[in-house]
Amino acid sequence: MIKANEYFGGNVKSLALTAEGGPATVGVMAPGEYEFGTASLEIMRVISGKLSVLLPGEAAWREFGPETEFTVASGVKFLVRALEDTAYLCLYR
Amino acid sequence: MIKANEYFGGNVKSLALTAEGGPATVGVMAPGEYEFGTASLEIMRVISGKLSVLLPGEAAWREFGPETEFTVASGVKFLVRALEDTAYLCLYR
Repeated sequence: MIKANEYFGGNVKSLALTAEGGPATVGVMAPGEYEFGTASLEIMRVISGKLSVLLPGEAAWREFGPETEFTVASGVKFLVRALEDTAYLCLYR
Repeated sequence: MIKANEYFGGNVKSLALTAEGGPATVGVMAPGEYEFGTASLEIMRVISGKLSVLLPGEAAWREFGPETEFTVASGVKFLVRALEDTAYLCLYR
């Protein structure tokens, strides 16, 4: 049974799996702005769509489209704007 | 609100979105063998994991890993063996 989670009133949903040797989720973000917190290092890879991201300690938003990824340290918060429906793979390491 | 679906007793789950200009789902298959039917042309792209697929009219199973895809015509059935947890993006066209 695959574990499903939802956040932000159902505007972000994810499905858990093992990927590339460790825990991961694939998910979808509807357009909007979301603040996420990390409990481990996270590698966020965009599958489709586009994210604008404000990473901890950075002053400028950066955009990530398909086949690009960014890494977020453990124990921090970061802001994500989904500019359109966006599918992602998140690896927890 | 993102629409979620589940199949095969929760061993396959998917989330709906718009991707690359049309309807799509991202999903996860737990290891197992599944028969799917298509109601439109489907482009199945493997994100992580590995699928063995028996396409309509073919005699041999073919394996698809990350960053590979296969296309299935509308109105047919096909067999998929998930050899490990597999994440996919499916485009309906």
